[in-house]
Amino acid sequence: MAPAQYNTVAGLVAGLESGNRRALARIISHIENNSELAQPLLAALYPRAGQAHIIGITGAPGTGKSTLVNALAGLYRQQDISVGIIAVDPTSPFSGGALLGDRVRMRDLAGDAGVFIRSMATRGSLGGLAQATADVIMVLDAAGFQRIIIETVGVGQSEVEIASTAYTTVVVEAPGLGDEVQAIKAGVLEIADIFAVNKADREGADRTAMALQMMLHLGAPDRQQTMHHGRMLPVSLPPDIAPDRQWTPPIFKTIATQKQGIEALLAGIEDHNRYLAESGTRQWRQYLRAATELRMILRDALLERVLQQLGEEAISETVQAVAQRRLDPYSAVRQLLEAYHHRINTA
Amino acid sequence: MAPAQYNTVAGLVAGLESGNRRALARIISHIENNSELAQPLLAALYPRAGQAHIIGITGAPGTGKSTLVNALAGLYRQQDISVGIIAVDPTSPFSGGALLGDRVRMRDLAGDAGVFIRSMATRGSLGGLAQATADVIMVLDAAGFQRIIIETVGVGQSEVEIASTAYTTVVVEAPGLGDEVQAIKAGVLEIADIFAVNKADREGADRTAMALQMMLHLGAPDRQQTMHHGRMLPVSLPPDIAPDRQWTPPIFKTIATQKQGIEALLAGIEDHNRYLAESGTRQWRQYLRAATELRMILRDALLERVLQQLGEEAISETVQAVAQRRLDPYSAVRQLLEAYHHRINTA
Repeated sequence: MAPAQYNTVAGLVAGLESGNRRALARIISHIENNSELAQPLLAALYPRAGQAHIIGITGAPGTGKSTLVNALAGLYRQQDISVGIIAVDPTSPFSGGALLGDRVRMRDLAGDAGVFIRSMATRGSLGGLAQATADVIMVLDAAGFQRIIIETVGVGQSEVEIASTAYTTVVVEAPGLGDEVQAIKAGVLEIADIFAVNKADREGADRTAMALQMMLHLGAPDRQQTMHHGRMLPVSLPPDIAPDRQWTPPIFKTIATQKQGIEALLAGIEDHNRYLAESGTRQWRQYLRAATELRMILRDALLERVLQQLGEEAISETVQAVAQRRLDPYSAVRQLLEAYHHRINTA
Repeated sequence: MAPAQYNTVAGLVAGLESGNRRALARIISHIENNSELAQPLLAALYPRAGQAHIIGITGAPGTGKSTLVNALAGLYRQQDISVGIIAVDPTSPFSGGALLGDRVRMRDLAGDAGVFIRSMATRGSLGGLAQATADVIMVLDAAGFQRIIIETVGVGQSEVEIASTAYTTVVVEAPGLGDEVQAIKAGVLEIADIFAVNKADREGADRTAMALQMMLHLGAPDRQQTMHHGRMLPVSLPPDIAPDRQWTPPIFKTIATQKQGIEALLAGIEDHNRYLAESGTRQWRQYLRAATELRMILRDALLERVLQQLGEEAISETVQAVAQRRLDPYSAVRQLLEAYHHRINTA
């Protein structure tokens, strides 16, 4: 039984601020289930968030990024910095599918009050995975976690996008997977603030690092130009916020299983954190995050209203016409929109 | 220089119907660039599509699914069946990142007039990757390709969803990757109509096949219930279309590099094709496809209208308020929607 005060927004927020774990877990449940308290909670917590440094860690399966996340979190804890971990990677031990050894390591981390681990369901979440992840990031941020690490598998479009909304995005590569070039082609290069070549004791680690170095010298596509293309609301930035392009992604070699190279990687992440603050780039990224998030929420809210207005019967008829190829989907959408606007105007 | 008749919808459609490759490529370009001809073309072609059998092939990187697609396409061609291939997998040789051997194999296939290969850009496409893929499937279908194979990397949420909208979805596993269990956890099991255990000459192939078999006996989550949850418009099916649940996914062992087991896999795909037609399930899946596609298009069309009505200035102000945490994104969306409806009512 949860305490009675955890049935209200005020009670839950107070619980969160006092560092209560149960309040945190209940808030996340409300949001994941889209309960009646979900939106009031998000509204109440939003002004309290904005302090955490958000770190995206992405890479192909087999690069060992979960172990790397684990080692990084452990090192942050040694420095008494609290860490929230959100795993949206179906191959990650944090999100459930793991060998026994990984599970044990994860349990060690989870026993620490300064760490909170949450895996995101990849299905059925209202408004999609990206929105659900953004909401949970915000809650952990409001709860006072100083670093929030989002781990995603860097091969899916949604997953890469989620990682790229972090303030610092670490792209993990490993030698011998044979797809360094592919990863670069797939647009991972343009989202990287930092590279980690993990499993650096394997043959080919130097070659992998060299290949990345060469690509960087050739000139990566400009992150500022490309990262959110078509995925955020159109915004004109205030004139005092100019994106800065002085950062060159450093490359770190790590052996996460032996905790080697983790200090340097962590220092690199913190360097980038400072760079963001000093150059004004952090503010710029906050605008990008807001523009991206608003777009996602607006799109889903609009759809919901239209469906409510038109009703299931009208929609079923349209779907039938499209399924039977009496009507193409684009014309069908035009008709649905006309019907919607007619409803609204005569309501 | 393209012939002048290829500058009109009627000319392009006539070109497509006469089997002209250049007309096909130009139509796809119009759609990818969202040119003025894009929507009239899609509307004109839609009634002409609906004949092709659409096959989704998905699996983790390293399962060899591109080689499998290649072998399948080759076998279809021996039977004089035309094949369109759409690669949305960043690790696929079809989409550009490949070893020399793969490129050569691909080129062999591409020299054949009965094969058309298209890779989808994973970024910047209007309305997202899923919609762009659906549009290109439709064009290849209207062009008369008898089988359309969509290859996606089965780890990303969007990619799994794209594959699951096919009529027949083949999930490719390989022994020794150590993530059979994860793949199943990640919800791949529920979308599989057919399993291929590729690289079957490797140690552990029998174990992988056995693990799949056991999962199937334990009872997979019902595809009909889960596959489109939250991702399609709500529809009530006509009473004469009842989803049928009699299909048990068969498991095929293949060695794609040696073209072993491909005949049996192809026969399995054709069995499923017949099953869909005879059981009425194909019609049911056509409804699901239509409901999913309409949802995607409607959502984007709505957003575009709202942005046009409200204008960039109003939107920038809202984004600023959210970025500076003076306003939470959900309240911001409510305000934007109210402003939109006010505009429309007074227009």
